[in-house]
This record gives sequence, C-alpha cells and structure tokens, in this order.
Amino acid sequence: MNFCDRLRARWQRAGSMLCVGLDPDAGRLPAHLAERPDGIARFCTEIVDATAPFACAFKPQIAYFAAAGAERQLEIVIAHIRDRHPDIPVVLDAKRGDIGSTAALYAREAFERYGADAVTVNPYLGFDSIEPFLAWPQHGVILLCRTSNPGGADLQGQRLADGEALYERVARLAAGPWNTSGQLGLVVGATFPAELARVRAIVGDLPLLVPGIGAQGGDVEASVAAGMASDGFGMMINSSRAILYAGRGEDFAAAAGVAARDTLAAIRAAQQRARPGF
Amino acid sequence: MNFCDRLRARWQRAGSMLCVGLDPDAGRLPAHLAERPDGIARFCTEIVDATAPFACAFKPQIAYFAAAGAERQLEIVIAHIRDRHPDIPVVLDAKRGDIGSTAALYAREAFERYGADAVTVNPYLGFDSIEPFLAWPQHGVILLCRTSNPGGADLQGQRLADGEALYERVARLAAGPWNTSGQLGLVVGATFPAELARVRAIVGDLPLLVPGIGAQGGDVEASVAAGMASDGFGMMINSSRAILYAGRGEDFAAAAGVAARDTLAAIRAAQQRARPGF
Repeated sequence: MNFCDRLRARWQRAGSMLCVGLDPDAGRLPAHLAERPDGIARFCTEIVDATAPFACAFKPQIAYFAAAGAERQLEIVIAHIRDRHPDIPVVLDAKRGDIGSTAALYAREAFERYGADAVTVNPYLGFDSIEPFLAWPQHGVILLCRTSNPGGADLQGQRLADGEALYERVARLAAGPWNTSGQLGLVVGATFPAELARVRAIVGDLPLLVPGIGAQGGDVEASVAAGMASDGFGMMINSSRAILYAGRGEDFAAAAGVAARDTLAAIRAAQQRARPGF
Repeated sequence: MNFCDRLRARWQRAGSMLCVGLDPDAGRLPAHLAERPDGIARFCTEIVDATAPFACAFKPQIAYFAAAGAERQLEIVIAHIRDRHPDIPVVLDAKRGDIGSTAALYAREAFERYGADAVTVNPYLGFDSIEPFLAWPQHGVILLCRTSNPGGADLQGQRLADGEALYERVARLAAGPWNTSGQLGLVVGATFPAELARVRAIVGDLPLLVPGIGAQGGDVEASVAAGMASDGFGMMINSSRAILYAGRGEDFAAAAGVAARDTLAAIRAAQQRARPGF
C-alpha cells in the first residue's frame, strides 16, 4: 500500500481525521524530562503512545529537532511509531524544496534516513523540484498550498493573469498534471475555511493536511464543513500545542491523550453535523 | 558589521564575486577520504583552504550533510571557515520556510547551531515567515526569487493580474517593504540571464546569489553583464561541482584551487568586458 492508501485505511479504521503534531519545544518539556539527554524523544514517544488510538497520522516538525541538534531523537521517535503503531502514517513536516539533484537528497533524508511515510514540500521551485520525491512510489508528498499564517496571502493569495489565485493554481496542478502517480496531497490552513472549501472544490478527494486549529485559532467545525471529502474523511486535521502541552506534570501523556480524544470527538461531531447520519 | 557589509568588504578586498558551493556528495569523495568517518568534513575543509583566496563566500548545501546524517560535520566545516577565514561570509543553503514560530527555530538552526552568516529562505509563505530571521540583525536572508531550474518557471514565471511575473513581485517586495533592515538578498539563477537583468533593474544594488554556472550550464559572461551592481560587484556567483570535483585523487584540493582561480579569472574578465577600465 502506498501512503494515500494507508492514510485512507487509517481514516476508516480509526474513524479519525486527527493528526497529532509533534513539535517538542525544548523549553516546554515537563520538568522530569527537561534535563534528560533523551528528553525530547521520551516526551514524543509517550505522547505518541497516549494519543495513537485517536490519531490518523503523526506529524513531527523537523525544525524543533534541528534547532536542538536532536536529529538522532527524531530518528528514534519515527522508528517508535513504525514499530508500535505501524498502521499510523508519519508525515515529516520539513517543507523542503530545492532543485532536482538536491531534492533527491532531501527525499533520502525524509524517507530513508528518518523513515517517514510522507514529507511536506514547498512548490515554489516547480514540478522538477517535486519529481525526485515521486521516485519513492510508496511515499506521499504534501505540497504547501495555502498556509495557515496571515502572511501566506502575500504570494499565495495573489491573482494570476487568468483570475486564478496562486494557491488555486497550485491546487489545480497538484490534482492534475503534477499528480502523475497519486502520491500528492496539499497543506491548507484551517484558519481560512473559505479557501479550504475552494481547494476542496478544485482537487476532488485529494488528501489535505490542515494545520491551524487550536493555538492558531482555526475552527474545527468550519474546517470540517469546508474540507471534507466525498467519503466524509479526506483531511489530516493537525493539532500540536493544544495536545502536547495539555499537561505539564508527570501525567503529561495522559493529559495529551484526553486532549486528543476530545479533539477527535469535536471533529467527529462536526462530521456528523456536516453530513447527518455519517 | 552585518552580513551585507561583510560581503561588500570581501568583494572589494578579494576582488571576487566567486561563491564556492560546498555540496559534498558522499559518492564522489576521493578514495582516501571516502571511508573515513570525518571524510565529508575533511573534504570540505581542504576545499575551503585551497579556494579561500579566490572566494567572496562559501555556500554549504545542507541537504548533502542531512542525507548522510552528517550534521556534526557541517558544524565543523563552518567553524573551520569562521576560524581560518573569518572575513569570508558563510551562506547556509537550506531554503527554509515555515510559519513564524517554526521559522524562529530554523533561524536558530542556521545562525546559532551552525554559525552561518546568512541562510537561503523560500518566500512562498510570505513576510511573516521571513520576519523571524530578521530578528538576527547581523545576519543575511537570501530569498529564492528565480531559481536556476527550468521548472522554476511553473510558478515563479507566472504573470500576476497587474502584469508582473511572480519572481518580479518577490524582487520588488525584497528590495522594498520586506527589506526593513537591509538584511535581504535574492537567489536568481545564472541559467536565465534576461531574468537576472530584470531582477537587477528592480532591486538596485541588493546582493544576488547566482547559482547555475558550470554543471548547470549558466554562462559567466552573460551573468556578469546581466547582474553586476553599480560598484561592479553585487553578486555571489556560485560554482559547486566544477570546483569540488575538478580532481578526484589525493590532490583534489589543489585541483579545486586551480578551478576556483580559473573561474574567478573568467568572472573578472567578464567584469572588465562589461565595464571597460574596471
């Protein structure tokens, strides 16, 4: 099964569109882990085990590991997920993007070194910068389309000469000529539900990674209504900080599990309201 | 002195616009280094010492280190440059780009962990994704504008509703409202001299990083004529593979030095042809 098949299987089996983001801020670890050399990995693996029943995917954000020189701990976290929760795909959030020969190395970094199932990629360099990732047929490539930050509009929201916004062009390319092997998905922020609906209208059932609920202010109800695919799923709705830092004591993992369960309940309620009888 | 001041000082003192790209392909190291655990770092530091007299900047490409799990060797290479060649700025080619809180971590990765003087950044996420890098006032931020790959045109070459191409819009923003503190530069490929000239016309004397001569087919003469600033400098014209792999034996560093000297001579000849009496 390739990434998209595995993701669809997980949506159905777990009944979940919740993606748990692993953004381990070294300054916010529980006190009993903060001083341990493997504190970041311990924090993440305990979060993973507590939230796995509610998750359709895990999304480690590589910057948190890289800024701390903790690449080895990222390897450990992903290996743990693949070992203990083999049916939950891992999306490495790295937003890589470079010309072909270098992009091929970033694909190796994500898929071979770290063992991720999918990676986020920045489309600004065009299709020949995306193609090297597609040489890994079992893996997914999630292109930035409309990001969750206000400044995303600076370029992504610009109108092209034919009237299409730049993010709409990216969506159309990703659902059509660029999606040569069914490996592509898109990042569309929960903070802009109208644009999320617009992307969904363009891309059919393409998988969407939807960051921005919780700390960034995106609304679960509006996101689900705007972004649901024809089977009632179709999204990885990401929450990071609201789950990771739900507790700060030794029971942080249990608190994260409760937060994940509650977030999933909100997503499912929104699915049912958007499609009665779901 | 901030990054742009240091770069200008180096252009003048060395009379050089040659940037030496450090892309240490593990499969192309000389045999006597290939099996050493510190082979990548040794390769790069010997290249650095041999090419320093001819270089205005060094540009390590982080993907080559990351794919090999060689972050520690990248730290060593940059520390070596700062120690032995303190007047030559280091541009970390990482093409990072993420929302604010994560961008701040990428800035720490580049400037604090690795000690780079500047970093390449992808502008697709807009100004609020660039701002966290500008919180490091001594450092430079080189935004992707028109990359050297053909596919760069897929998005960068698209016309906006007002007739401007997307890469021209990025150039105008980088030279104007986004350049709040004089820390910005732009990446414009040598493979498209007409677009390089267009960017230079938009941005005045903003520093340009110009990849794509040598193995990628860009022409030194055309690039210098198109991209020279008012003082006759203004560019970091990057060559990687043609210098790094000029020799493959134990004398690889000497061969790299000769290649760098010859490339610089070609750049200087082009400067003189573009501006007689220079």
